[in-house]
Amino acid sequence: MIRGNDPILLTPGPLTTSLETKQAMLRDWGSWDASFNAITSSLCKDLVDVVNGAETHVCVPLQGSGTFSVEAALSNLVPRDGKVLVPQNGAYCQRIVKILKVLGRAHVAIDIAEDKHPTAAMVEEAIARDPAITHVAQVHCETGTGILNPLHEIATVCARHGKGLIVDAMSSFGAIEIDVAKYSIDAVVAASGKCIEGPPGMGWVIARKSVLEKCQGNSHSLAMDLYDQWTYMQKTTQWRFTPPTHVVAALRCALDQFLAEGGVAARGARYRKNCDTLIEGMGALGFRTFLPRQVQAPVIVTFHAPGDPAYSFKPFYEKVKSRGYILYPGKLTQVETFRVGCIGAIDANEMRNVVSAVAETLKEMGVKQVAPARSAIAA
Amino acid sequence: MIRGNDPILLTPGPLTTSLETKQAMLRDWGSWDASFNAITSSLCKDLVDVVNGAETHVCVPLQGSGTFSVEAALSNLVPRDGKVLVPQNGAYCQRIVKILKVLGRAHVAIDIAEDKHPTAAMVEEAIARDPAITHVAQVHCETGTGILNPLHEIATVCARHGKGLIVDAMSSFGAIEIDVAKYSIDAVVAASGKCIEGPPGMGWVIARKSVLEKCQGNSHSLAMDLYDQWTYMQKTTQWRFTPPTHVVAALRCALDQFLAEGGVAARGARYRKNCDTLIEGMGALGFRTFLPRQVQAPVIVTFHAPGDPAYSFKPFYEKVKSRGYILYPGKLTQVETFRVGCIGAIDANEMRNVVSAVAETLKEMGVKQVAPARSAIAA
Repeated sequence: MIRGNDPILLTPGPLTTSLETKQAMLRDWGSWDASFNAITSSLCKDLVDVVNGAETHVCVPLQGSGTFSVEAALSNLVPRDGKVLVPQNGAYCQRIVKILKVLGRAHVAIDIAEDKHPTAAMVEEAIARDPAITHVAQVHCETGTGILNPLHEIATVCARHGKGLIVDAMSSFGAIEIDVAKYSIDAVVAASGKCIEGPPGMGWVIARKSVLEKCQGNSHSLAMDLYDQWTYMQKTTQWRFTPPTHVVAALRCALDQFLAEGGVAARGARYRKNCDTLIEGMGALGFRTFLPRQVQAPVIVTFHAPGDPAYSFKPFYEKVKSRGYILYPGKLTQVETFRVGCIGAIDANEMRNVVSAVAETLKEMGVKQVAPARSAIAA
Repeated sequence: MIRGNDPILLTPGPLTTSLETKQAMLRDWGSWDASFNAITSSLCKDLVDVVNGAETHVCVPLQGSGTFSVEAALSNLVPRDGKVLVPQNGAYCQRIVKILKVLGRAHVAIDIAEDKHPTAAMVEEAIARDPAITHVAQVHCETGTGILNPLHEIATVCARHGKGLIVDAMSSFGAIEIDVAKYSIDAVVAASGKCIEGPPGMGWVIARKSVLEKCQGNSHSLAMDLYDQWTYMQKTTQWRFTPPTHVVAALRCALDQFLAEGGVAARGARYRKNCDTLIEGMGALGFRTFLPRQVQAPVIVTFHAPGDPAYSFKPFYEKVKSRGYILYPGKLTQVETFRVGCIGAIDANEMRNVVSAVAETLKEMGVKQVAPARSAIAA
């Protein structure tokens, strides 16, 4: 137990939430009670509005982590004889492929280097090559590296060819614009502990109503049956199974703060400033980002590990933590990296402070070559 | 929003938690951080101890509501060619049957009246009749009515015939003795928002290690793959996917209070006193319980609705709520009932107080005949 000030989480969810959001958990709610159910309904309505879906889409909340909602979206929205195309440039794209394997849904991946994004042309070509494809599953911001994939361009291709599009928007929802009225998207999946800045414990699928209406019986699971959850909620205003009441109430509180801040535009701007401040400060210390600047989402930044033999992630992490900041390990297999999140109830001051903490730590560890090893860049 | 004192939840989870437990949620934890992972490990160890399983069993926590853990236990522990016997005397037994249907696992139910419990002889006879049966799925305390099923007797039959036993102990875990060292039980399933008195948001499966070791590839789902969750956790000390960090920390705090109170014996005794006080007080008002006293678990009590035409559940519920207590609707289809929970961070004083609130409410509603309609008792 850390007894002093809590460290700031620079992790891509769970992240640092505001005290107000946490305090919303200081109350027990009856899951059958009308006052709790009013929270659920207002949450669903406001979450649909974040992606401009009021005319066409509905929000189905689901217990569990974001991955539960991604799995539920794939199993409910893709019929058992469907086939899914997965443009794959990172760990969360690979997770989608893994889910499709477990579900027994036919799928094909376009494998792309982790520092490159798929293009509309790649997706169009893959669709043309394989007429069995019914859906595309696209990760918007790939948290494995922090890369931003060109969602709206890919949506345009899907619309042109009449393919369903399911978007894992886990780490972009609320920070980067997604417009389901302008672009053809069947489902947007996200979770509570990300850019809306709630505690983790639930996710949601914002699905096109006309599509969801046809999904009865698709689900492989009772607990993850989105169609059932949706129809039951419409009838009763309640969740089918016990909701994480404290998390729901805190998410409502976090969403109020999100709206008061100014919605996606304002939150995105704060994160962009966080990201710029971080990259600039770390760059001045000699760090290099894994991604070129133009594909970097303002969510999480992957840095190459220093090339100096005195560097090792574990002590680096511990020493930065003792200075008040929790970093995140890298998720790449080929090169040594670490990640720093830019999201949560934090601002550019925290970014400047973590850079100071990193600078002190490097000095303490005797790391002189902060730039990556030559081999890492070549890899 | 209720702005005054929060109402006390007399519901079978979510329930009223202590302020200390809720305050444990006032901190953000990094899901990758060693201090958080130490909480998870200590939780798992202590939860196994609650059912005396240290020598033979392991605890696998899972995100989501208790039903997620029940579904995961069934899908992971019953092989795809297994067959499950379900002694069925209430809503949560029926839910198990529904899950088995969705999973495509063969199953057969023994249908029993909701105010009767299965017997060891019934289970033995069903097993003898159908040699294809590999497992028995038994609800310990059926929350639909509040009936206590004879778990240890049924475990003895399962052991004698070499059948696996999976126990839904959702509303009994921590309040009613379960001993996996003395009785042969393959899996005990429970959740955070029940008798350990944490917030809802996660469940767990306490599984026999030698059984779980053989479960690779059984799961129908990636997110609910207990085998994967367990092996990953052993390797890394982390959850596979984002845990509900605040709920986990609060559950640890609730478990500390459970141990300080004196474990299962002390908690069970408090709930028993709550239950006795409630039944006595309500009885004095003229209410009749749905269950005979000898099969009533000290968890939740189903009362017959008053026979008076002036009674109706909705206004009754609202008026009792305005007096500070949240009741629970009945879950029976044939007779009109309502339920009152005895569990949570409450004592016999609250039970006396809710009886007063009910008495005042009946008076306000003009309910004179508190005893049930004759037809309800005949049903």
